[in-house]
Amino acid sequence: MQAPLELHPDRFFPVEPSVRAIARTLFARIETLPIISPHGHTVPAWFAEDTPFEDATSMFLWPDHYVHRMLYSQGVTLAELGIAPNGGTAETDRRKCWKRFAERYYLFRGTPSRTWLDHVFAEVFGLKLRLSAETADLYYDTITDALKKPEFRPRALFKRFNIEVLATTEGATDLLKDHAKIRSTWDGRVITTFRPDDVADPDREDFAQNLATLEDLTGENTHVWGGYLKALANRRAFFRAHGATATDHGFPTAKAADMSVAECQRLLDVALRDKLHGSEAEMFRAQILTEMAKMAADDGMTMQIHPGAYRNHNPWLFANYGRDRGADLPMRVSFVEPLKPLLDRFGNDPKLTIILFTLDESNYARELAPLAGHYPSLKLGPAWWFHDSPEGMMRYFRSMTETAGFYNTCGFNDDTRAFLSIPARHNLYRRVTCAYLAELVATHRLDEAEAAEIAVDLAYNLPKAAYKL
Amino acid sequence: MQAPLELHPDRFFPVEPSVRAIARTLFARIETLPIISPHGHTVPAWFAEDTPFEDATSMFLWPDHYVHRMLYSQGVTLAELGIAPNGGTAETDRRKCWKRFAERYYLFRGTPSRTWLDHVFAEVFGLKLRLSAETADLYYDTITDALKKPEFRPRALFKRFNIEVLATTEGATDLLKDHAKIRSTWDGRVITTFRPDDVADPDREDFAQNLATLEDLTGENTHVWGGYLKALANRRAFFRAHGATATDHGFPTAKAADMSVAECQRLLDVALRDKLHGSEAEMFRAQILTEMAKMAADDGMTMQIHPGAYRNHNPWLFANYGRDRGADLPMRVSFVEPLKPLLDRFGNDPKLTIILFTLDESNYARELAPLAGHYPSLKLGPAWWFHDSPEGMMRYFRSMTETAGFYNTCGFNDDTRAFLSIPARHNLYRRVTCAYLAELVATHRLDEAEAAEIAVDLAYNLPKAAYKL
Amino acid sequence: MQAPLELHPDRFFPVEPSVRAIARTLFARIETLPIISPHGHTVPAWFAEDTPFEDATSMFLWPDHYVHRMLYSQGVTLAELGIAPNGGTAETDRRKCWKRFAERYYLFRGTPSRTWLDHVFAEVFGLKLRLSAETADLYYDTITDALKKPEFRPRALFKRFNIEVLATTEGATDLLKDHAKIRSTWDGRVITTFRPDDVADPDREDFAQNLATLEDLTGENTHVWGGYLKALANRRAFFRAHGATATDHGFPTAKAADMSVAECQRLLDVALRDKLHGSEAEMFRAQILTEMAKMAADDGMTMQIHPGAYRNHNPWLFANYGRDRGADLPMRVSFVEPLKPLLDRFGNDPKLTIILFTLDESNYARELAPLAGHYPSLKLGPAWWFHDSPEGMMRYFRSMTETAGFYNTCGFNDDTRAFLSIPARHNLYRRVTCAYLAELVATHRLDEAEAAEIAVDLAYNLPKAAYKL
Repeated sequence: MQAPLELHPDRFFPVEPSVRAIARTLFARIETLPIISPHGHTVPAWFAEDTPFEDATSMFLWPDHYVHRMLYSQGVTLAELGIAPNGGTAETDRRKCWKRFAERYYLFRGTPSRTWLDHVFAEVFGLKLRLSAETADLYYDTITDALKKPEFRPRALFKRFNIEVLATTEGATDLLKDHAKIRSTWDGRVITTFRPDDVADPDREDFAQNLATLEDLTGENTHVWGGYLKALANRRAFFRAHGATATDHGFPTAKAADMSVAECQRLLDVALRDKLHGSEAEMFRAQILTEMAKMAADDGMTMQIHPGAYRNHNPWLFANYGRDRGADLPMRVSFVEPLKPLLDRFGNDPKLTIILFTLDESNYARELAPLAGHYPSLKLGPAWWFHDSPEGMMRYFRSMTETAGFYNTCGFNDDTRAFLSIPARHNLYRRVTCAYLAELVATHRLDEAEAAEIAVDLAYNLPKAAYKL
Repeated sequence: MQAPLELHPDRFFPVEPSVRAIARTLFARIETLPIISPHGHTVPAWFAEDTPFEDATSMFLWPDHYVHRMLYSQGVTLAELGIAPNGGTAETDRRKCWKRFAERYYLFRGTPSRTWLDHVFAEVFGLKLRLSAETADLYYDTITDALKKPEFRPRALFKRFNIEVLATTEGATDLLKDHAKIRSTWDGRVITTFRPDDVADPDREDFAQNLATLEDLTGENTHVWGGYLKALANRRAFFRAHGATATDHGFPTAKAADMSVAECQRLLDVALRDKLHGSEAEMFRAQILTEMAKMAADDGMTMQIHPGAYRNHNPWLFANYGRDRGADLPMRVSFVEPLKPLLDRFGNDPKLTIILFTLDESNYARELAPLAGHYPSLKLGPAWWFHDSPEGMMRYFRSMTETAGFYNTCGFNDDTRAFLSIPARHNLYRRVTCAYLAELVATHRLDEAEAAEIAVDLAYNLPKAAYKL
Repeated sequence: MQAPLELHPDRFFPVEPSVRAIARTLFARIETLPIISPHGHTVPAWFAEDTPFEDATSMFLWPDHYVHRMLYSQGVTLAELGIAPNGGTAETDRRKCWKRFAERYYLFRGTPSRTWLDHVFAEVFGLKLRLSAETADLYYDTITDALKKPEFRPRALFKRFNIEVLATTEGATDLLKDHAKIRSTWDGRVITTFRPDDVADPDREDFAQNLATLEDLTGENTHVWGGYLKALANRRAFFRAHGATATDHGFPTAKAADMSVAECQRLLDVALRDKLHGSEAEMFRAQILTEMAKMAADDGMTMQIHPGAYRNHNPWLFANYGRDRGADLPMRVSFVEPLKPLLDRFGNDPKLTIILFTLDESNYARELAPLAGHYPSLKLGPAWWFHDSPEGMMRYFRSMTETAGFYNTCGFNDDTRAFLSIPARHNLYRRVTCAYLAELVATHRLDEAEAAEIAVDLAYNLPKAAYKL
């Protein structure tokens, strides 16, 4: 007998009946609100071209680094999932790849991946049995067949999912042709986000080359510090013209700097000619953060700072399979001291919005909530990446709210490249929000009317406001 | 319709009915115990002079950095609250200031400030509707009128609040005239605490000047290390004579040192003549911690160590509005290695009591509970400052108790300059204590008689013993 | 009236009735499964000689550093417990020592020591009143009398406790004579674990002497890097021949290195001739970790890494009473960057099993779960030492599972030298496991059949597999 696949209407809610009842009532108020997805990594070509997705394996296994990492940790190679290494071969039978995943689906017990996937399987594809070795074929066929239908094309799903706005993320030299096409051919609101790490991190091998491209695109001399900044401002304007309301910065640390132009020029010279040493490269990125804050104060774009990931920790995997295979790992970070040079200059500007994220939860109560609860320019992003999960969100709410309140946060963002999981992730966030708020109501810290207002604010109003959508 | 203001009798208790019942029973045993407030920042002149407080704005908004920080984080300037910057002007209509606060009271949802304020509004002023734009005038008038009555004077409130002892905090060169007056004119027990940071932290601009004052007051030569230590001992004795039973030390880190007298003299020379570099200033403070432990072992005063605050993080705010405006921010700290030189000398002395506090909760289970669960001289202070909140206290209990037990802690201290909030804070602490204990009883980790004994110990006996009151 | 001692059948289970019912059902499935104890510190001579334990004091007080630390923190000296300092004397009346403990038993309220002790008192000795000053004699007599009976001898208790396999831990130069005797005279499975810190940590005073012993035992030249490694491999083989399936490494940090042979030889030369400086000693140990991983990849032994203890923090206590008196204290540690040199070489080997432990819980969600959720060679050890407790385990499950899943963990190990507490510790672990799983079922994150399978895996299958038992 196969285990049923059922999405229980009370999932993730507190268990005590009176609290669960409050959570239900709150959730009913927000369950069907439009989705605001202000930060993510879906592919704009999907919406520009609206071509059908291919099959279960290419849709669920290939782009999802959460799936890669878990299967890889248990000895499954990426080639066995159909992903070929550089210059090598991989399993070509996609159904076989899917089965390898299906028979190991128990590995995901207790993880948010299981929650997201079950949600998609049940809600989008109408599957009624849990994924397992036995149901692998049923799943593969059901999904692959469904994907051929017009209502499973990207634009149709976007409407079905009730997405009001979806932001993708592009590098600074991207020409944004897909976004242009989307705007000229469709009424779905898909916007870009300006992520200039490729032209701002001198540790990247392609840094000099990217600056050459930047120079070509903007006509500014990127070998001169002032020209380089003008080129960045120029690209910000180009992104704004394509709908962007925000920028995103994913450096290893949150270090900011406020150096002289002469020192900046010296670092730029070395970075373009040769290679900056570790600490100098960090100072270069640190200066960029401050410059980006300055430009944000000027042009009104919301600035997102996501520090703390050790990218490509596994050199063998990186050499053979490249980026985004689940080998990015969190590190300890700080904010209070590192961000000070930036905050000294721009922290008191209430028109500026800087959203901080962390993978190091020890910062929640110690640094992030106190910072956001003081500086007018700072807001807290949601529990992120590894912490975008029921327990992770609960720790976030419990640690942040008492010091920062709700109104220095900005609701949820799904940060995903798995388009179909977007409603699943927002659904989970909304459920956990209601679970937390129900607890506050049941322990008489809020009344129900206040909780309902907060639930709507977190699900809808706060992200709209923080990202100026 | 205005929302009612009600303090639910079961607030902060667990929700499951059987656990809530245990919490209620425990709380009934401790709710009305006298308040022991061994560490705080109320103004001794209030009790020496017993002049009435003025109005809602000057009482609730002006002294409370929790209120400043939250409103400031949402774009309200301090001038708009009636607080003038250096050389500038501020709103003079206090009612208007109050309204600005009232209409943003929703910002405090989910924060302990809301809990404390609601408690004071309801219990002290008998207000029955929640604070909002609509009730701003009602509040302003009710509070301002009440403050004119004799029963709202500081001494009357002290008695009404059932405070058995209240400690204030004064710098080393304070003449303690208010305390002398209190003792000679009133039977309320208000004592001082010796906080010598002003004469012990060479990073302060007024360090040399403070040492000159110290020299004048004590007749000891503070330019000589031995004389400087004698002067400190002299002031400790002066404070003890004015009721002090404890000292307090708020340096950036918990680093202690055990240097030669020659090296101490060298650092003192530089500090008085010029300025110590960062690491030398830290070594100076580190030595002071050890000297203070030595004097505490001699004179029996309880020693409090509060590291980890980055003071005056916002230079613009500091330049314009000075200290204590909500811009002190926590930093990562350690205890196990930094405190070792002090513990090597005095850690094994069971007559010495050193109370450790932290703003970095990652230390709770990792360092503080293991330290206090081993060294006879060490005790744990309560969840402090940003963590003086329902979730913060719960994390404290859950993280500390299993390793340190209850009897290496010392109950609660409110650490507040908001006099009226003292009963609110102790009430909250007692409720959360009972919530935690009820959980231990309901999961059969303690029986109810033990839990009741612990509840009384935490609320009353342990702070009295730790502070020798 | 004395308080009763009762082990409630629902202890540690969630309180809400429907969740408690799920926990009960799950626990019934695993309560009586055989005990797998793959990591601990019991004394092999107990099982080799099977001589009776002596009395309550020598059995419960003398070997248990959890008991020492708590009593010591409250001013009880070790001499008062009957433990003599070097060259000194101690209380010789063991009953008096026991009374000192008994009258302070309230200090252990809320700690896991209380849980373990109560379990042993009730289950092993049939005591029905709680330990206190009044019942001290009853306890002393009951326990001391029982220990004279054959069914209380080590081998009988081992069988009664339903222990399938028990691992002890021995230094690299141990001759394993007790283990040889156990194997030749008894069918109980007691195996050793290879812990080479004594010949791998150049900070130990006896390092050179231990290498001389190692040379004698193996015939390899331990003054030459290659010979030294061969000697280590030789001892691994010797331990494997005596049943060992695992190694254990307890260095201060998790730092690994991958240095040239020339540099290794240079450090070995200095270490043998003189003394390595702090950072060089760390590099030596760091290289050993990588060498041990290499040997583990070759010989198939499971490798355990336990960093983060500051050993013998209290110099007075160490000088007078030696090691393991409760003065080992946790420090902040990291894994992601420090382990990289080892992982770069061996992290992708799915046949290698490296089990990571921490005393710094901030690593759970930030570093350990992401590492184990990616690298095929890595698994997570259970909540350890100070965190082997209801709250500690719950934090572990909540922080680790969402990123690592259940199948990158390896169940429980008791890590104890208190033989009688082994069933108590496994019982507690199994209860907390069921409490956590019941919560996942009640919030519809797992179904009950899955939860039951996971409960059995955590209690039995995963530790057997991870340690190749």
